[in-house]
Amino acid sequence: MSLEFAIHHRCARSQARVGLVTTPHGSFDTPAFMPVGTRGTVKGILPTQVAQTGAQILLNNTYHLMLRPGAELVQSLGGVHRFMGWDAPILTDSGGYQAYSMADINAIDDDGVSFRSIIDGSKIRLTPERAIEIQNQLGADIIMAFDDCPPSADPGSTTTNQARLRHAAARDTKRGSYDHDARLDLALDRTARWLERCANAHKRSDQALFGIAQGGTDLDRRSRSIEQVCQVDLPGYAIGGVAVGEAHDDIVRVVAHAAPQLPEAKPRYLMGVGYERDLVAAVLAGCDMFDCVLPTRNGRNANAFTSQGQIRIRNAQYREDPAPIEAGCDCLACQPSANAWATPDGLPISRAYLRHLFSTEEMLGPILVSLHNLRHFQRLMSDLRTTIVNGDWGGFANRWPVAREGLLPELLRGLQDDKP
Amino acid sequence: MSLEFAIHHRCARSQARVGLVTTPHGSFDTPAFMPVGTRGTVKGILPTQVAQTGAQILLNNTYHLMLRPGAELVQSLGGVHRFMGWDAPILTDSGGYQAYSMADINAIDDDGVSFRSIIDGSKIRLTPERAIEIQNQLGADIIMAFDDCPPSADPGSTTTNQARLRHAAARDTKRGSYDHDARLDLALDRTARWLERCANAHKRSDQALFGIAQGGTDLDRRSRSIEQVCQVDLPGYAIGGVAVGEAHDDIVRVVAHAAPQLPEAKPRYLMGVGYERDLVAAVLAGCDMFDCVLPTRNGRNANAFTSQGQIRIRNAQYREDPAPIEAGCDCLACQPSANAWATPDGLPISRAYLRHLFSTEEMLGPILVSLHNLRHFQRLMSDLRTTIVNGDWGGFANRWPVAREGLLPELLRGLQDDKP
Repeated sequence: MSLEFAIHHRCARSQARVGLVTTPHGSFDTPAFMPVGTRGTVKGILPTQVAQTGAQILLNNTYHLMLRPGAELVQSLGGVHRFMGWDAPILTDSGGYQAYSMADINAIDDDGVSFRSIIDGSKIRLTPERAIEIQNQLGADIIMAFDDCPPSADPGSTTTNQARLRHAAARDTKRGSYDHDARLDLALDRTARWLERCANAHKRSDQALFGIAQGGTDLDRRSRSIEQVCQVDLPGYAIGGVAVGEAHDDIVRVVAHAAPQLPEAKPRYLMGVGYERDLVAAVLAGCDMFDCVLPTRNGRNANAFTSQGQIRIRNAQYREDPAPIEAGCDCLACQPSANAWATPDGLPISRAYLRHLFSTEEMLGPILVSLHNLRHFQRLMSDLRTTIVNGDWGGFANRWPVAREGLLPELLRGLQDDKP
Repeated sequence: MSLEFAIHHRCARSQARVGLVTTPHGSFDTPAFMPVGTRGTVKGILPTQVAQTGAQILLNNTYHLMLRPGAELVQSLGGVHRFMGWDAPILTDSGGYQAYSMADINAIDDDGVSFRSIIDGSKIRLTPERAIEIQNQLGADIIMAFDDCPPSADPGSTTTNQARLRHAAARDTKRGSYDHDARLDLALDRTARWLERCANAHKRSDQALFGIAQGGTDLDRRSRSIEQVCQVDLPGYAIGGVAVGEAHDDIVRVVAHAAPQLPEAKPRYLMGVGYERDLVAAVLAGCDMFDCVLPTRNGRNANAFTSQGQIRIRNAQYREDPAPIEAGCDCLACQPSANAWATPDGLPISRAYLRHLFSTEEMLGPILVSLHNLRHFQRLMSDLRTTIVNGDWGGFANRWPVAREGLLPELLRGLQDDKP
């Protein structure tokens, strides 16, 4: 077995657990948040800095790496770890999600997906076998099954992946009027059949293949997909097709339903999620692994996460603000002297300076706010791991006002008597 | 006195010396190379990383900071050190050079320079008094006199600052045909008169004002300017108007003539230089301080400095190259495990990976090559300091083939018997 999962503590009043996943490139604590290193780099952040934010595993996108520089080249250079200088666990997705949502022209059939490269327009075919072969070449510790990720229930959603929904709708209307339920059923069956093909194609014993359950926001279909996917014995399973445009309440409802049905002894990975309230709800539902581009994407756009919510550093109100992004944060921007990697006399970075960097389009603005945001999510996960063990959910709720949104107040209230 | 200069060793066969400059924000070893932090940031590089390349002092551009965010704001936030999080020595230039060369519309007269802001087109006036007032507000440890920097002898030069030459020519032809000698003489007189006004306007005893000698490539005018400028007693002096388009031989000739005429007991700063061969020649002539944008500007353009010369990382020949930029370099990119700031298991970064980062326009490419280049110049200065003490110029020449260009082989040959 290329992956081991040890559960060290279980929450008495929720499904949450604290654990340790061990891979050929080291271990990571769960619940874990994986920064996204799309093209083999967390944008603007050195691998050593990623590690210093507390991240112990990161994600690379197969789709982007297969287009540039190509999986064969990455393999010839020793695999993704050596390629990007990250000697710790890495997970790659299958490339399917980006193939559906990013390509201008794509077609999906029962055997796979065809699309044109966003780089040079060349025609590319991804099948379960090819997606696994590419991930075998890239060499991540955890690789993902090639699944059929159907559009969100609401084709008019504007929140996350409009391009994907647009393409999905265009695809589906070619077959006549769009029947969302029929599309979900088709995705479920394909995902199950493709998973068997992925498992048969997988050749490297040092890589752990995770299956992905789909089903949209329909709980019965979620159960059916989990049942189908778990018929293939794998070291871990993921919940896909969440946070693709649906409301927070739907995310919480789907995850609370789906996560406990996945095998208790194996890591559960909720793909592409997300905001703090969603992460906390998913941890309480028993999820162990997460990834999201929010810290770096929002960081590049001058949006800084704080325990009170996001602040937009470009705003004129910060022009003369000498305060750090968040007092008490121990990231390099907020408290450089607290970090071993800073000079002893390092000075905290003011919001006014950060605003100046964004106003003048200096690279250091995106870098510093990305570093802060990455640390923000790692601090949240670290606090969740601590709180699962000590049961002080009241203290947790006080420290993270931003997590007291949507259904979270109710969820957290139910846990607050759970002191040791 | 806000600045102290101690000379610890003098080369027996050249004017070179090893020293230590002490400022209110700490000391730096000389000969020193100052990275350029134009707008209060060395582009893409955290202050802690700048320090870790070995830099002990950096330069900020008054022109850019006065336009954005404004000197008053920097002052209200505690000055440039606190503003950018660099608790070590900083030098600011006067803003004159950029005012001449960057503004679309500018006019120079005996009292100062008028130009329009490149940000919003507003009309701005810089005089000796105003340039000093702004630098007093910014609060650097070393500030520079406002001088009249005349165009290079060759108005057709395309090598460095075409815009500046173009504007200078436009300015000068308004007065009739361009007379280079007359323009040089005018610049010398203005520079001398403006220096007295700068010294009278300077209000902060914790900042050291340096004077600047001009004179173009004419050695007699260089001598005259130095004589004029040194009539004002200041803690340090600079050689300006070098490397503004002239040939390497002219740079070496001018610096070898001018540097020894500056006061022996005070730091000598050669402004805006430059390439390795020029730096080595200037050190041998007795210069102590240097600044140049080459490491970061070329780094952003994928040009990496090595001891053999520059390599262009974008080139197809590096597509599959697993080697670091330069074997034996101890920068973060070439040898991460050698750095205390890297993870213990950090992996060296290949040329192939760097090429991938530039091909995909990832920020990390400019960051890593800038870090390498900054370290390259600091390693050169460190080796110069060592060699001045131990006299092994033959060893130095072997380690730095790139410095064996132009007049350097002859200069270095003359030193090679100088072993202890």
